[in-house]
Amino acid sequence: MRESLMTRISELRDLQGAIGLLNWDQETYLPRRGDEARSAQLATLQSIYHERLSDGWLGEEMEACAANSSDEQAMLRVLAWERNRALRIPARLVKAVSEAQSAGLTAWRTAREQQALKPFSSPLATLVSLRREQADAWGHEGERYDALLEGFEPGMRVARLTPVLERLRAQLVPVVERLTQGSRATSLFENHQFAEQAQFDFTFEILRAMGFDFERGRQDKSVHPFTSGNHPHDIRITTRIFEQLPLSSIFSSIHEGGHGLYEQGFVAAHVRTPLAQAPSMGLHESQSRLWENIVGRSEAFWISFLPRFNRAHGTQFLLPEFLNEVCRVEKSLIRVEADEVTYNLHIVLRYELELALMRGTLEVQDLEEAWNAKTKSLLGQTVTTVGQGVLQDIHWAWGEFGYFPTYALGNLYAASIWKALEREIPHVQNLMSKGDLSPIKQWLNQKIHAQGFRYDAESLVRQVTGQGLTDVDFMAAIHQRYAQRLGSS
Amino acid sequence: MRESLMTRISELRDLQGAIGLLNWDQETYLPRRGDEARSAQLATLQSIYHERLSDGWLGEEMEACAANSSDEQAMLRVLAWERNRALRIPARLVKAVSEAQSAGLTAWRTAREQQALKPFSSPLATLVSLRREQADAWGHEGERYDALLEGFEPGMRVARLTPVLERLRAQLVPVVERLTQGSRATSLFENHQFAEQAQFDFTFEILRAMGFDFERGRQDKSVHPFTSGNHPHDIRITTRIFEQLPLSSIFSSIHEGGHGLYEQGFVAAHVRTPLAQAPSMGLHESQSRLWENIVGRSEAFWISFLPRFNRAHGTQFLLPEFLNEVCRVEKSLIRVEADEVTYNLHIVLRYELELALMRGTLEVQDLEEAWNAKTKSLLGQTVTTVGQGVLQDIHWAWGEFGYFPTYALGNLYAASIWKALEREIPHVQNLMSKGDLSPIKQWLNQKIHAQGFRYDAESLVRQVTGQGLTDVDFMAAIHQRYAQRLGSS
Repeated sequence: MRESLMTRISELRDLQGAIGLLNWDQETYLPRRGDEARSAQLATLQSIYHERLSDGWLGEEMEACAANSSDEQAMLRVLAWERNRALRIPARLVKAVSEAQSAGLTAWRTAREQQALKPFSSPLATLVSLRREQADAWGHEGERYDALLEGFEPGMRVARLTPVLERLRAQLVPVVERLTQGSRATSLFENHQFAEQAQFDFTFEILRAMGFDFERGRQDKSVHPFTSGNHPHDIRITTRIFEQLPLSSIFSSIHEGGHGLYEQGFVAAHVRTPLAQAPSMGLHESQSRLWENIVGRSEAFWISFLPRFNRAHGTQFLLPEFLNEVCRVEKSLIRVEADEVTYNLHIVLRYELELALMRGTLEVQDLEEAWNAKTKSLLGQTVTTVGQGVLQDIHWAWGEFGYFPTYALGNLYAASIWKALEREIPHVQNLMSKGDLSPIKQWLNQKIHAQGFRYDAESLVRQVTGQGLTDVDFMAAIHQRYAQRLGSS
Repeated sequence: MRESLMTRISELRDLQGAIGLLNWDQETYLPRRGDEARSAQLATLQSIYHERLSDGWLGEEMEACAANSSDEQAMLRVLAWERNRALRIPARLVKAVSEAQSAGLTAWRTAREQQALKPFSSPLATLVSLRREQADAWGHEGERYDALLEGFEPGMRVARLTPVLERLRAQLVPVVERLTQGSRATSLFENHQFAEQAQFDFTFEILRAMGFDFERGRQDKSVHPFTSGNHPHDIRITTRIFEQLPLSSIFSSIHEGGHGLYEQGFVAAHVRTPLAQAPSMGLHESQSRLWENIVGRSEAFWISFLPRFNRAHGTQFLLPEFLNEVCRVEKSLIRVEADEVTYNLHIVLRYELELALMRGTLEVQDLEEAWNAKTKSLLGQTVTTVGQGVLQDIHWAWGEFGYFPTYALGNLYAASIWKALEREIPHVQNLMSKGDLSPIKQWLNQKIHAQGFRYDAESLVRQVTGQGLTDVDFMAAIHQRYAQRLGSS
């Protein structure tokens, strides 16, 4: 590859890194009144990024380029993929989407304040219509949603995804029904306070055990936890702390830590190239979910970490009662508060609605009713306020359609990857109960992270696990973890 | 002005803002091993900035542009000034300087570790030679140093500056001699510890009194205090805290707070244009020095703030002994530790050496000897290690020649500006002693900050004070503050 092309490729990554830092800062340390300034800076960097990704010179260089290795070939493939998607959207549409996003976000906030969908209806309808147009511009083979999904989950298609989610739905509804019969309403932590600093310190203890490298990353606090991967040597995660809910900071940190380990795990040869990224949001999510749900909710993990938790907070919780809390299953209205069992039903709900919106079989005016009906049928819950219903997530406010399924994909991939890991590290439960998480991290580093974006997500999963996307491993894990409770009904 | 030109102008400012944030983060929160990544990101943004500043399209737009107001005219003037300087340096030289800076910095660090100039000599010689070349490329009328000075202090010339600094030198040497006779060697704070958090909190108290707006800015800690002006709504200052030296954090915060108020004081009409910047580093420094030395070392200020200091630390210092500490004058080897009286002599020393290096009347091989001789003659001190001598500042490691004089200009401008302020707010000492600093801030906002870069520094000072650069007001202020001690000899 010519040096000038390689330089441009690295510059594009540098720009993404800078954009990442500006975004991170906006959620952590930006002064209250700095928002407008930051939006302008981000818009400028993004437009420069777009300009440099789509300029003619880059196209010519890429055409003339002879790849010297399979990695270079993969780089060019990923770059071409991103570039082609950028080129297919006319500047007019880019601008219209960006304006509709701003308007959508503002209207969504107003609607939440007023507890009514109405102020958001028209901006949302605009976003839906623009995304339909954008999807058609990107191109698809009849299923418009595919073009949106492609942006988050390259290679995934509705035809592949729908049957998997339908099987998941069919199995989960009765499982949830059984697991939530007669569940305790009160929390173990109800009469306790967990000091903020002690909670924060404890999350660092867990992250260190996971192998998160604080010489190449950091953890701060933010309203919504997230991971910012600016460069494998500069990975930032955030957590949030509630003094009455000690599990919130723990599972936020473990979740983001899983994302963070992925980003820290890219290899030197991929740094400052498009290969230093996950092949999909779903695979990225598989790493956070694996750590959060499979490791973090296991008995083995808490055998080691509950004594440390008790020490940190001066409490004396016992393992069974604590695990009960950690693995509590509850029907709820809010996705982000959902447990690992009900979670996927929240995704199925959104996926079915998004699909219908993009196909044109559902219009925005009927969205709230459809949402409430599905909440009833999937989760057995009655929506009483739009804030706990159709307005709960920020994604649609931003016109983000096609993203939700990646959360479910993360859950499914995680289960399959973990099954492969247990095959290759048979004593992993034993190691976990001693607090030794490093073999897990190393295995994931080698099998998943070091691959970067060499392959698409499902291909990589197939390489690692022997099979592609499936609901089987996930459902088996659920049945195993909740065997006792499921068997008893 | 055409919208496309205005957009480009704003984009350039946005890029500077992003660069500012990346630099700020590097000094505050960047993970230890993130340095290389950050350098690459900064280099990319800087090269994009340079490319967009110097491209032909911008030149044509500027030529075709008809300014609609005096502000627009000023914008175009500042932009043209910056652009012309950029265009005169060939890409080859830009690259050579940038590489020499990296090499210089590394060698300077090594030299300091080894306590020997030798490892740094050759990289420094390269930097000197490149800066000579660069100065000639920028252009000058026989005095090469002028072209460097122009980069930090537009409009200032050696012919104007030298006589002022020479008068300053002639007056200060005997003043320092008298003020340092029989000065106490021990510090008032010697047997105390000042808790880090209490110190940090106290700096916020002072900054709030100064009018620093924490909704449009923040304060963090860093090794070397600095101000990062990313946008008038996002101004970040830093301080540093030593538990045995309570004045360090206080005066660092006041100093940077003075810079910060300047940056927060640009007006809405100048935001995202080249007018939202100080016309020179010297004028910027006048604001930090005014707050640090004129306000912060005054009796009136401490009448209000000493009781708060004592409360914060549970101490019982008395005003006279505290003021003695605040206004201690000592001959020292280190510029950054120097007091307000000896400080300018450190600058004169550097200025004379830089001037000789650029004129070619001094070569790097003779620099250490010259440094030591001047330290003797100006400050009466004997240099025993290079770390306390010629290697003490980072500026030359970075090839920064022409910057040092701006510190002295800051001191001189500050004194003249303060004199004008006292004329217009005759009861300012009384206000200060009540802790009311807001009239000072408002006056500076209106007279200096709101002007942005409409005029060059000396013109603006002349507008505000009735006269240009002079040593008279500064020397008068010194004689006034130290009257007792000076009179007694």
